[in-house]
Amino acid sequence: MNFNYQVIIEYLGTSFSGWQIQKNSKTIQGVVQIALSKTFNKKIKIIGAGRTDAGVHALGQSANFFLNKKIQNIPKTISSINFFLKKYPISIVNLRKRRLSFHSRHSAKKRLYEYIIINRQTKLAVQKHKAWLVKKRLNLIIMKRAIKILIGTHDFSTYRSSSCGAKSPIKKIIQAKISKSGEKISISFVSKSFLQQQVRSMVGCLKFVGEGKWSIKKFKNVLKSKKRSLCAPPAPADGLFLKRIFY
Amino acid sequence: MNFNYQVIIEYLGTSFSGWQIQKNSKTIQGVVQIALSKTFNKKIKIIGAGRTDAGVHALGQSANFFLNKKIQNIPKTISSINFFLKKYPISIVNLRKRRLSFHSRHSAKKRLYEYIIINRQTKLAVQKHKAWLVKKRLNLIIMKRAIKILIGTHDFSTYRSSSCGAKSPIKKIIQAKISKSGEKISISFVSKSFLQQQVRSMVGCLKFVGEGKWSIKKFKNVLKSKKRSLCAPPAPADGLFLKRIFY
Repeated sequence: MNFNYQVIIEYLGTSFSGWQIQKNSKTIQGVVQIALSKTFNKKIKIIGAGRTDAGVHALGQSANFFLNKKIQNIPKTISSINFFLKKYPISIVNLRKRRLSFHSRHSAKKRLYEYIIINRQTKLAVQKHKAWLVKKRLNLIIMKRAIKILIGTHDFSTYRSSSCGAKSPIKKIIQAKISKSGEKISISFVSKSFLQQQVRSMVGCLKFVGEGKWSIKKFKNVLKSKKRSLCAPPAPADGLFLKRIFY
Repeated sequence: MNFNYQVIIEYLGTSFSGWQIQKNSKTIQGVVQIALSKTFNKKIKIIGAGRTDAGVHALGQSANFFLNKKIQNIPKTISSINFFLKKYPISIVNLRKRRLSFHSRHSAKKRLYEYIIINRQTKLAVQKHKAWLVKKRLNLIIMKRAIKILIGTHDFSTYRSSSCGAKSPIKKIIQAKISKSGEKISISFVSKSFLQQQVRSMVGCLKFVGEGKWSIKKFKNVLKSKKRSLCAPPAPADGLFLKRIFY
């Protein structure tokens, strides 16, 4: 195994039980591993940078795998993998050789997630499964004040799913932004890594603030409490996109 | 029939045989008419502003219908119509009373269509059915020069489908723009009205110019020829969005 390759993967997570391989469930990792194994005529295992939950999408998931020979034609190999993915809303958008020590998860320096809310009264059609429909009008000014509280190093236990396997609940949010264009609200977060359900939990709390259900003070106290039980319901998977992994 | 109502409709056209009602086919008009008829407990016929083809999407299709009584609660009525549309990627995003002489097609002053191209090598995943995948790198500078040729009043016979029922092939393009953001190219057109398949045919020709297959001179000559047979293959329905009707 002398060659280490990285793939960048785009997918619509709606019909999948998330990234991570599971018996008797359709997962992104499972389907991509089969496509790679068919392409290279040998069993391939991939390591993903982020284990996205069921229904979560990616524009730039990153994964790596090892081969015992060098790939001669990169574009042709990408086409071949994508041929074996033709039934699925999954696309290999890039493939590149990496140093042997490259690990898609551990080598990652930053991860960028984006969450999309559609703030309107009426049901989704074109954006169905790709956004969270919030009917109550959200106050962006207040939400922008609240999101700033999340920036920096904090104990994020409040936003941590009970099944999260991370060693520590302490993470550093490097960037957090909200912007609005028409009825579409985009919320993005950059961090070295996130706890399980952290982004969706933070978005759920920000929505409470935007709706006027919580004050800024309450929002801050909920973060400080480190109590999962005080967290707002996490935002649904539909609106979440893993946009990019930085190395 | 003393009341005339306009609805604004958003839909994903992928699984429909277009807007216009047909026997034995699932159409937007057909499905919306059933939802309206169920809501008002009487047979409702609607008139659409634009007869989008199979697979074409809309963010702001407009249609009107007559009632013999006034709607008391607009938001509740929208919810009720949308309830009957819950199986479909169709949403009534607005409903308003109009003067009796209002006709969603004839009263329209301008129509805005947008066409989305994804210019990359690899297959679509998140944008599947919502964009045209063009693999050859498109030259935006040349395409911007070409699109300017279309602005103004022309005989658009070149871009007219053989089944088009318009009285005259002469139309006036009020605005035509191309912009690019990453791999996404957006091409938009504003006109009082369009010939059948005009937008997709223009986009097909612009793509030939962007690929370097046609010169600007050839593009101009094809328009001037008024010959359908010289037109490039029309762009697929997937990338086309009826964005807005102006009154």
